[in-house]
Amino acid sequence: MRETDFVSGFARGLKVIEAFGEAQPRLSIADAAKITGLDRATVRRSLLTLSQLGYADYDGKFFTLTPKTLRLGHAYLSATPLPTIVQPYLDQLAEKAGQSASASVLDGTEIVYVARASQRRVMSINLTPGSRLPAYCASMGRVLLAALPEAEAREILGRSELKANTPLTRTDPEELLTELRRVRDEGYAIIDQELELGLCSIAVPVANDRGQVLAALNIGASAAHVPAREMAERFLPLLRETQAALRLVFR
Amino acid sequence: MRETDFVSGFARGLKVIEAFGEAQPRLSIADAAKITGLDRATVRRSLLTLSQLGYADYDGKFFTLTPKTLRLGHAYLSATPLPTIVQPYLDQLAEKAGQSASASVLDGTEIVYVARASQRRVMSINLTPGSRLPAYCASMGRVLLAALPEAEAREILGRSELKANTPLTRTDPEELLTELRRVRDEGYAIIDQELELGLCSIAVPVANDRGQVLAALNIGASAAHVPAREMAERFLPLLRETQAALRLVFR
Repeated sequence: MRETDFVSGFARGLKVIEAFGEAQPRLSIADAAKITGLDRATVRRSLLTLSQLGYADYDGKFFTLTPKTLRLGHAYLSATPLPTIVQPYLDQLAEKAGQSASASVLDGTEIVYVARASQRRVMSINLTPGSRLPAYCASMGRVLLAALPEAEAREILGRSELKANTPLTRTDPEELLTELRRVRDEGYAIIDQELELGLCSIAVPVANDRGQVLAALNIGASAAHVPAREMAERFLPLLRETQAALRLVFR
Repeated sequence: MRETDFVSGFARGLKVIEAFGEAQPRLSIADAAKITGLDRATVRRSLLTLSQLGYADYDGKFFTLTPKTLRLGHAYLSATPLPTIVQPYLDQLAEKAGQSASASVLDGTEIVYVARASQRRVMSINLTPGSRLPAYCASMGRVLLAALPEAEAREILGRSELKANTPLTRTDPEELLTELRRVRDEGYAIIDQELELGLCSIAVPVANDRGQVLAALNIGASAAHVPAREMAERFLPLLRETQAALRLVFR
């Protein structure tokens, strides 16, 4: 790629969009400059362009994103057959399990939810397509990392901020790599309250019939209702059933 | 806004992202140029920039969006308290009604789903946050249009492609404006298979305690299970209950 093929104004603008988030729903030009590390003049032009195009509202001081921004993420979701194909299988899986079921893919050190069938609320955080969680401490993340060549998984763990979210979170890279090997051998991952106290989950890979892993799917449950040691017994047969059905779809 | 404050490269790049979608998940440079109406050199630079930043994959001929694109739409969802606040109320509503419940806002001539609690599948289309439907023939659309000054609703209907999706779809602007007046007076809208045969839905506005309408919420049901004439009797009390609870939240 030649340098002249790179549209810096576009790249910087996307960075400005990503500066908005839960912790900063309203941004002044100074706020956005601080978060993105871009200079104020650049940030100002990006924000005014977003506002001119209807992607942002501006009250003279603060900018907020508008629902039009959803078109950008939705361009991916509707362009990708995966979420649409997986959704009815997740709905059935969630109904049979009586628990929430989700599908996700890996993006860097994080997993991104692409589809979700919600039953009861077990987590304090609100997960929707597009939500992200660190891969190292999520059951789907472990399944997706286990599907990579070990050197690549090691490299991703090296770039991850391995934080003890709870006293149960595994944060030692070597211990995590050992666990990934177990996940690869046994074909599933279980998380016992490593992300949040009270939450257990079990995940399996979704592969096509050439064995390429396309995504992960999981069932999450409250540790009070289903202790980690019962997760495999209760939910693995259902997950395996869905996994087999999807393998036939992704021929 | 001065002309120099507008970053054309950013604006064109966003247009290129929006060119992807269900009908065109993979785009060549020529495809994207055709859809956006931009020249090939511009489109090529935008696509290469997206690929360089990890928002798109390029196989030498076709570009596809990557899950990283979801960060853009998610910036809105996570920055906006509305979806997060509404979700647990929708979950409860869907569970009590035994039907799917959704919340949406108006964006131009369309409604955009911002949250959804799915029970059984009643529509052939897959709705997730970010999904769009034409406002004139959706129950939430009617509620949101009814909340506008009539001149504004008339203007939006004038810009809408009023298409008969089914033999039951109302497409006459005057008839629609009369219906909007009824919706405004009675506080709810019912759609009887105007969007898709077999689908009924009922919607109410979500307002803060100053009476400003922030969103709409609805319950959708299969016409075979719940005929339109029973929608109000079965679901309006539940919707009113949720509406009242949310009015206290959005003080």
